[in-house]
Amino acid sequence: MSDVTGGEEAAAGAPEAGRVVLVPYADLAARTATALRAAGVDDASTEATTRALMHASLLGVDSHGVRLATHYCKVLQSGRVNGRPTLTISRTAPATAMIDADNGLGPVGSYRAIDLACEIAAETGIAAVGVVRSSHYGAAGAYALAGAERGLFTFSTTNADSLVGVFDGASAFHGTNPLAFGAPMPEGSRPWLLDMATSAIPLNRVYLYRTLNRPLPENVAADAYGTPVIDPHAVEMLLPLGAAFGFKGAGLAGVASILAGAFTGGAMDHEMLSMTRGQDWSTPRNLGHFFLAIDPDRFAGRVGYEAAMQSYLAALRAVPQSGTGRVMAPGDREWEEADKRRREGIPVDPETAKFLNLA
Amino acid sequence: MSDVTGGEEAAAGAPEAGRVVLVPYADLAARTATALRAAGVDDASTEATTRALMHASLLGVDSHGVRLATHYCKVLQSGRVNGRPTLTISRTAPATAMIDADNGLGPVGSYRAIDLACEIAAETGIAAVGVVRSSHYGAAGAYALAGAERGLFTFSTTNADSLVGVFDGASAFHGTNPLAFGAPMPEGSRPWLLDMATSAIPLNRVYLYRTLNRPLPENVAADAYGTPVIDPHAVEMLLPLGAAFGFKGAGLAGVASILAGAFTGGAMDHEMLSMTRGQDWSTPRNLGHFFLAIDPDRFAGRVGYEAAMQSYLAALRAVPQSGTGRVMAPGDREWEEADKRRREGIPVDPETAKFLNLA
Repeated sequence: MSDVTGGEEAAAGAPEAGRVVLVPYADLAARTATALRAAGVDDASTEATTRALMHASLLGVDSHGVRLATHYCKVLQSGRVNGRPTLTISRTAPATAMIDADNGLGPVGSYRAIDLACEIAAETGIAAVGVVRSSHYGAAGAYALAGAERGLFTFSTTNADSLVGVFDGASAFHGTNPLAFGAPMPEGSRPWLLDMATSAIPLNRVYLYRTLNRPLPENVAADAYGTPVIDPHAVEMLLPLGAAFGFKGAGLAGVASILAGAFTGGAMDHEMLSMTRGQDWSTPRNLGHFFLAIDPDRFAGRVGYEAAMQSYLAALRAVPQSGTGRVMAPGDREWEEADKRRREGIPVDPETAKFLNLA
Repeated sequence: MSDVTGGEEAAAGAPEAGRVVLVPYADLAARTATALRAAGVDDASTEATTRALMHASLLGVDSHGVRLATHYCKVLQSGRVNGRPTLTISRTAPATAMIDADNGLGPVGSYRAIDLACEIAAETGIAAVGVVRSSHYGAAGAYALAGAERGLFTFSTTNADSLVGVFDGASAFHGTNPLAFGAPMPEGSRPWLLDMATSAIPLNRVYLYRTLNRPLPENVAADAYGTPVIDPHAVEMLLPLGAAFGFKGAGLAGVASILAGAFTGGAMDHEMLSMTRGQDWSTPRNLGHFFLAIDPDRFAGRVGYEAAMQSYLAALRAVPQSGTGRVMAPGDREWEEADKRRREGIPVDPETAKFLNLA
């Protein structure tokens, strides 16, 4: 099984207590950049990749944080990924563009795509930018957040190599295919941010439950025949979001495959080289990504939009809680975690700490 | 509890065997149009509404099919909905527009929005159109299909009155807030079509299980305290898609609320008048909808797009099946049902048949 590519995994991916190194944000960013530079990465790629990894590490999505630096350096050195890409940008229509990412690190073409989508949308109201010949782009939410911080509603997706079953199917077909959305908020409030894999459960959760020898929730993962299992050791594929209504999760995975793959000319999930399995570490994987930016100013206007968002989120957070869980809006948990990590430092697992010369 | 507004409910909403009237497509469409006209509806609204209801009745989404004619006529007569609206279209940017639907029947403004989005996207590559001061728009997939049939990838969403709990919450907050996506296919193949509520289960499934006295699947519905229940008689709210990962379903419901509500100036879910509960049948509900159309020509191009879609769907349908269920792509089941209903007639429940003078 390959690494999960959705970005929703927060605490579960945290390294074991007692062996964790807590590293201040700036130090961790600097070490990550240093590691990338040492692998031959140019300045633009170093900056974009460090930014994407630090997004995830700060917000608690450790599966997509700085631990990926190790993998990225490996694929840079093996030739799969190009650390000094030349991006080719084509404006294909007044509100659309394509970026050929020259097999660079995923965040380089992706942040450029978000910048471009925001620039175009400022003129046209909405814009879409596809990226092709890219590689793993980290947490989908990094780009949704980047657009939301510029005041635009932003959508980010990528497809990925097969790891998740289709509804009623007996083999993995889709990737964990994340969908991320960021909605701008008024000055002083942080964006509404949803970053979710379309699988029922993140792969790292399965690994965690293996370590704990704990049964999984029902209908989130399956054996090699597509039969749901709760024994984490028996898991051969993840199941799509929705359990008995898993056609929904599988359909949403398809949205990612269509927009990020079929639209851009990127590899489709079932034909994509695995991120971490397999012997081939030198052939580029031709990942595609897809980004949308929409300007609230061009619908009912910013004032009404911001008032509606404030009233909506205030009402949502005021919903009485069931059991022990607090009612939170998408992003609330991540912003709290980010504040905590800014104060206390970012936990880094021993292997990554060693790789980044932190331990 | 109000009517579910997602469009994914196929067979479960079918009327009891033995009392069903099977009606040929053209006859049913004519009877539906006649009923609307008799309620004072103008030609454009009659045509659009009949088209949306027949979409659902043909594809097997009976909850959103011609049975709604009864409800629509009721709210036309009670003054909530305007059968002779004057749509006001504002082009707000080169690639965006807003439609004020003048409290008309939902399908009128919605089909106009899809037409406009497709026209604009032909020039700009992508377009978004918001609709405000609208009403229940039927099945979200009707509009996704309309755009896909014109060769564009199309997204359709609406929000709705509170019926679905938020993650960890003890009261209903979001509507069933459907997300529908339609992807064009090459000449001769019917579009890929996903039309899903963001709740874990459709309300009509709960009603069906009540009739059958059968326990529900776990974690799809809850009592008034937000505690999951499997007794269908104890259900007071639906749960968001995703069970233990219900923050995903709730987040996706939020995407609908933000785009259809906050963007357009429509009512937010928690402030929206109920569709069927409550005493007020004359105040317009101010529903908002949101539509996107994206032209595959403006990314990697139509030829590559169509080849990728064909290879992707062929591979998906070839996934070996687990258990007894066939592996299908989104829309496959609906297209089969549509073929059957074209041949055999469309089943209409006794109450609706009586209303439409079919029994």
